[in-house]
Amino acid sequence: MNGDTSDRLERDARMVLSRVVEPGDPDACRLVHQLSAKVVLDRLRAGRLTSAKAVGWSERLPQADADTYRRIADRIGARYVMPGDSEWPDRVSDLEALIGADDRRAGVPFGLWLRGPLRLAAACDRSVAVVGSRASTAYGDHVAAAVSAGCSDAGYLVISGGAFGIDAAAHRGALTGPARTLAVLACGIDRLYPAANSDLLLEIAGVGLLVSEAAPGCVPTKSRFLVRNRLIAALSQGTVVVEAAVRSGSLSTARWARDLGRGVMGVPGPVTSALSVGVHELLRQPETMLVTDHHEVVDFVGPIGEAPAPQRRGDTRPWDDLDDDGRRLLDAVPRATPARAEAIARAAGIAAAVVPRLLADLEGRGLVSGEPGGRWRATGRG
Amino acid sequence: MNGDTSDRLERDARMVLSRVVEPGDPDACRLVHQLSAKVVLDRLRAGRLTSAKAVGWSERLPQADADTYRRIADRIGARYVMPGDSEWPDRVSDLEALIGADDRRAGVPFGLWLRGPLRLAAACDRSVAVVGSRASTAYGDHVAAAVSAGCSDAGYLVISGGAFGIDAAAHRGALTGPARTLAVLACGIDRLYPAANSDLLLEIAGVGLLVSEAAPGCVPTKSRFLVRNRLIAALSQGTVVVEAAVRSGSLSTARWARDLGRGVMGVPGPVTSALSVGVHELLRQPETMLVTDHHEVVDFVGPIGEAPAPQRRGDTRPWDDLDDDGRRLLDAVPRATPARAEAIARAAGIAAAVVPRLLADLEGRGLVSGEPGGRWRATGRG
Repeated sequence: MNGDTSDRLERDARMVLSRVVEPGDPDACRLVHQLSAKVVLDRLRAGRLTSAKAVGWSERLPQADADTYRRIADRIGARYVMPGDSEWPDRVSDLEALIGADDRRAGVPFGLWLRGPLRLAAACDRSVAVVGSRASTAYGDHVAAAVSAGCSDAGYLVISGGAFGIDAAAHRGALTGPARTLAVLACGIDRLYPAANSDLLLEIAGVGLLVSEAAPGCVPTKSRFLVRNRLIAALSQGTVVVEAAVRSGSLSTARWARDLGRGVMGVPGPVTSALSVGVHELLRQPETMLVTDHHEVVDFVGPIGEAPAPQRRGDTRPWDDLDDDGRRLLDAVPRATPARAEAIARAAGIAAAVVPRLLADLEGRGLVSGEPGGRWRATGRG
Repeated sequence: MNGDTSDRLERDARMVLSRVVEPGDPDACRLVHQLSAKVVLDRLRAGRLTSAKAVGWSERLPQADADTYRRIADRIGARYVMPGDSEWPDRVSDLEALIGADDRRAGVPFGLWLRGPLRLAAACDRSVAVVGSRASTAYGDHVAAAVSAGCSDAGYLVISGGAFGIDAAAHRGALTGPARTLAVLACGIDRLYPAANSDLLLEIAGVGLLVSEAAPGCVPTKSRFLVRNRLIAALSQGTVVVEAAVRSGSLSTARWARDLGRGVMGVPGPVTSALSVGVHELLRQPETMLVTDHHEVVDFVGPIGEAPAPQRRGDTRPWDDLDDDGRRLLDAVPRATPARAEAIARAAGIAAAVVPRLLADLEGRGLVSGEPGGRWRATGRG
């Protein structure tokens, strides 16, 4: 058995285990890490793994077949990558540190099914997850699309979950920019779920990337959606939650991002909107950064100093750099009835001797005008 | 000269200096702190203070008269309090630490004119400032009123600036609760500015408190509004900004609050609203806490553990405390066509031996129902 064959056997075993074991199962993940997928699968087939969990895995063995998966993948133009492959994104292995930290299924995937022209590892190098509620508002859709379009324009791949609402808006926005978008599915790579998003998912497969750890043919389940969220967080440099009700699954993505040491961001909304309650709770956590546009997203996840978000300033106005005396004097110059310098000095509480100089400065800025009889009037611009 | 007379002379001198010196002037504040107001005023009248600034003060001496102020105060039912008086709020003296820190006019006021039945020091003990844009939106007005009503109900005095927009909404909301409200004016206590708010200000004077450091008769000026903001921040335990454009003066109140070590809070809004841009910038600062209702405000400024904001949770649902196996099994039970336990076990990847027990548990929660022929169907509640 040469290296290629051994690699092929390990690859096939990982494909099969992806069907037999629920995604992220920490026990299976530890076993595969210790023994290799091939050895784990051999033992499982031989009935040598006897834990209750392993017996559960065995129930599914008859349904799992690597050759079938390869055929499906060939038909739809999908490929399988596993750790060690050049396309494998090393940052996904950060999940390993979370295994056993709590009862979530944090395991590193055995491999990933990919569908689309982007190269996974390189595409994720600069990437942001944009996620949120399925039942989004027009406001949320608008902001998700605008933020994602801006991130894609700035060279950041936008990662989301392919679902209705915020996910779809994020993908659509990102498709307008050069960096495109990646959808992590909770079902097999051959299924376009939800069906109403199939055009969008096909478009992503055409120019971006669909990703799934589930074997071809797998249906999405509630628990798979939650476990899938760890991949959205792990593949990206940071996660932006746009709209989320109290129990939204997108908050689980934010939790994964936090636990992985990735940036966690939230887009606020009206406090009167139930769809923003979850985001606002998130924003009350000290590690979450409030973001309002793609500049602030890129500023937060990018290398320090690379693309600082522009400071928001109103227009500069002629009285902006007045000193305290200048401002007080200006306040004291009447608009309606022109007044003499001495009266203005008194009103302002500024020594009369310096007032002519200050008035001349204000006149130079167009803020006051000299009138007949040595009187002064404010122009109303201040 | 007995103690009462000396107190009266110092009090009169402070009233006069409040007119002669611009509020918060750090030089005057230092002089008064060192020498007493009476000595400073005597020297000023004698022409013995010769700095350019002091010459400016002298310009206003002819306009300032303590007896006039007393007469006005008597007529409108106002009173004057100064440091050392039982009604003087000690926390205002925190401003002293900021004098000279930058070029803002941080000086402790010489005294405060008060109008209304509340006792200032006691009323400020539990207090929150609610401030924001004059050009507020209906959203901002609604939230400012709701937060303020809730704070007042919880026993917190609401402090604001008596202006249009958010200030007015905050005062109005707070008037519905027992703790009432306090307006810090930028003009003399006898002026009801802006005139369109005079009914509101009179109502506050009737049941709450109007406060000003400016002498009776003083008109409001731009710079006085900004310097006034330091008192709003200093009198309260924390400042909530509800709506603020980029340059909003309410952001200066938040800055004062931060520099005074008070809590700084912001209510978010749509990122598409220009009136929330300033608040969102504020919320991107690590010291600012996002708040969405009065619970969170009180939680932030109150003593730790006194009134923790209720955790937002959706309704509990029968599948909330399912373990991982239970959830996976539930995912595998079909809704339309009932299935046998063995098929469900296979779909879920769970050992067939434990499935009957798990199904019984799900049935107990009303999540699945047993059908004829030993088949099971999900009830659709999960």
